[in-house]
Amino acid sequence: MNIPQTSFPRVVIIGGGFAGLAAAKGLEREELQVVLIDKHNYHTFQPLLYQVATGGLEPDSIAFPLRKRFNDIDNFYFRLAEVRSIDAERKLIHSSIGSLDYDYLVIATGSTTNFFGNTNIEKFTMEMKSIPQSLNIRSLILENFEEALLTSDLEERRKLMNFVIVGGGPTGVELAGALAEMKKGILPKDYPDLDIRMMKINLIQSSDCILKGMSEKASKKAEDFLIKLGVDVWKNLRVLNYDGETVSTNGEDHFKSSTVIWAAGVKGEYVKGLNAECVIERAARYKVDSFNRVTPHTNIFAIGDVACMETENFPKGHPMMAQPAIQQGRLLAKNILAELKGKQLKPFKYNDKGAMATIGRNKAVVDLPKWKFQGVFAWFVWMFVHLFSLIGFRNKAVVFLNWVYNYVRFDRETRLIIRPFKKRNEYSFENET
Amino acid sequence: MNIPQTSFPRVVIIGGGFAGLAAAKGLEREELQVVLIDKHNYHTFQPLLYQVATGGLEPDSIAFPLRKRFNDIDNFYFRLAEVRSIDAERKLIHSSIGSLDYDYLVIATGSTTNFFGNTNIEKFTMEMKSIPQSLNIRSLILENFEEALLTSDLEERRKLMNFVIVGGGPTGVELAGALAEMKKGILPKDYPDLDIRMMKINLIQSSDCILKGMSEKASKKAEDFLIKLGVDVWKNLRVLNYDGETVSTNGEDHFKSSTVIWAAGVKGEYVKGLNAECVIERAARYKVDSFNRVTPHTNIFAIGDVACMETENFPKGHPMMAQPAIQQGRLLAKNILAELKGKQLKPFKYNDKGAMATIGRNKAVVDLPKWKFQGVFAWFVWMFVHLFSLIGFRNKAVVFLNWVYNYVRFDRETRLIIRPFKKRNEYSFENET
Repeated sequence: MNIPQTSFPRVVIIGGGFAGLAAAKGLEREELQVVLIDKHNYHTFQPLLYQVATGGLEPDSIAFPLRKRFNDIDNFYFRLAEVRSIDAERKLIHSSIGSLDYDYLVIATGSTTNFFGNTNIEKFTMEMKSIPQSLNIRSLILENFEEALLTSDLEERRKLMNFVIVGGGPTGVELAGALAEMKKGILPKDYPDLDIRMMKINLIQSSDCILKGMSEKASKKAEDFLIKLGVDVWKNLRVLNYDGETVSTNGEDHFKSSTVIWAAGVKGEYVKGLNAECVIERAARYKVDSFNRVTPHTNIFAIGDVACMETENFPKGHPMMAQPAIQQGRLLAKNILAELKGKQLKPFKYNDKGAMATIGRNKAVVDLPKWKFQGVFAWFVWMFVHLFSLIGFRNKAVVFLNWVYNYVRFDRETRLIIRPFKKRNEYSFENET
Repeated sequence: MNIPQTSFPRVVIIGGGFAGLAAAKGLEREELQVVLIDKHNYHTFQPLLYQVATGGLEPDSIAFPLRKRFNDIDNFYFRLAEVRSIDAERKLIHSSIGSLDYDYLVIATGSTTNFFGNTNIEKFTMEMKSIPQSLNIRSLILENFEEALLTSDLEERRKLMNFVIVGGGPTGVELAGALAEMKKGILPKDYPDLDIRMMKINLIQSSDCILKGMSEKASKKAEDFLIKLGVDVWKNLRVLNYDGETVSTNGEDHFKSSTVIWAAGVKGEYVKGLNAECVIERAARYKVDSFNRVTPHTNIFAIGDVACMETENFPKGHPMMAQPAIQQGRLLAKNILAELKGKQLKPFKYNDKGAMATIGRNKAVVDLPKWKFQGVFAWFVWMFVHLFSLIGFRNKAVVFLNWVYNYVRFDRETRLIIRPFKKRNEYSFENET
């Protein structure tokens, strides 16, 4: 990997998401060599992916170049690579660009979509965990509308205008809400020949409430908001299969749809190589102790979505969200520094700052530890928190500008098919014109 | 194509570039049915593609959704399709989504890269006529830098850091300047391990001056600016071949380079179907009379880059730039309306408003008909004119914000590899994560 050997201990961090960035930041300007490896050259602000998918934000405004973040830090190295395996015995990682030895290894690889082994669903549904995937959804939605215009077969048209979102967590709820906003404000104007009543947005949740991790009040209100926006919310319904045409379920309801978005589960994206007992197979997450150590190793850590710290309050590990990831990353940096100085390590204690989700214009739900509220104010709080959390002044400014514009003009202007998704097989990079 | 037949005459416009948009705009709210067909669902502001390619602007800010532009116009139809041929006898066009008859046909398909029949050059060089192509260049530049870091073979590293731009027209000059700005302000910070002196930017021009269509003063000053920025300007040098490794020329100089951008020529992107005498083979442009009619047809028009109107001042047709395209589009709309009312048509007369090019920060050249100037003021004029010409308030605002940010911070923040170009064969849409 062409990284110089120094007398400083080397910390290798895999992944530049919330957890990895927080850890890297905490190790800046210390007597350490830090190597950050990511398969993208940018950090993705995942909470806003759904806005990219629905034409509300440009992809470049929720991505931040990782090199820029650290380009004034000495003894810091970034490498664009995919890590393929870990050799704990030899303290080595193997990647697409070669191997590298480490003194401390921080695994912050995050999570990936969980299809629960259903290969049909994996093949035919859309996932939304990365920017290219969100752009694929954006293209597909618009391509389906273009196609719906052309057919006079009503069944076919209905299928093209029928959207199914599987999973009533924050991702599914926010995406369903954003699609409903498109249905209200934009698509009828852009496609005046189509009967917009044919457009259906279905949100399917296998359990009996949406936003399961949030308060009952938030869950109920979010459902009200969605229904008011015209989303069909299906509860206690489990999707069993999708063959590219029909979504079949464990109930009597089946859905003919050209666009199925799978937001029904995530699992850890763990790296191969550690012993079986290090990984909780079901969740594909590393089992970590209260210092985020992947036991029995003392120099391998996992943080964020890929780490599962089983505690009394969280017997199945912390929620796979930004907050635990950031807090674990920050603490781990401190603990690594403490260990190097021979000091005592501090166990992780999750400071639950609450959760929030936005459904649409003026419609959001916020659960703070001591205060739960919904509606317009919640929506402003949601926006403020997300704007504040984005990395980089330019990104903040561009997102703010877009939000103000979208709000004032009831618009979402980045409804662009830059790289077609449906015609991707015809699509050639060389001849693209 | 599922477009209703009405009693109004139907005008079919192929292409939503500068020419097609101007024509469509001029035909709004008249007793006509207008059908605009484009292979993208957005208008591309081509003059700023080079800024997308060099990380200065996000692609979405120079694209404008075509449906939005016309969504409040009655009797206007947009179709996302590729037109494959024209059947003048039956007054029909054939496209990827079916056929359509027309009363008037406006061909505004623009231009495409001209490789002058060299298939090697076509295969191995990068072109920059569309947003996806610009994004490919952006990815390639950054991927090459990431790769340069990894190799300890100096020859290989030199090749990865050697950029060759063929063609000293506005596109080549602006791209070379932007790359030089990246070399100055950004790349040394992002890649502190690389010796930035190894990065070379070569601009190769076959004739004895760059910016050939502009004044001698502008050409000379632009060259000075480029040299000051560290660009190697090669004049009277013709590129003969490129095999993916080495650029060979008609001189003694050869260039080992991983990134060759071909900006040495454009040709019309004419549609098949009309008789041979309608097309000027060499330029692939339609021969049009002073009313932009593709003679002998009286109801088929060509405007913009794809039209070649041979006049005394422009024996080889007007320059393939935005201004003639917009002016022809506007006049054509008026002429079609005049003809429908039985009035006299007006012949086209090009109002040359001048030309301009930007080289870098505070460095531009402007030729107005009566005033030629260069430097800081020219640079502000260039920015103002381009900002003003962009379609859409949101686009203007986002571009302005980026420019202010880039200027104040000496930065270009969208240096993101969203879709890798080099690894495009490994890249699968389904499994992208």
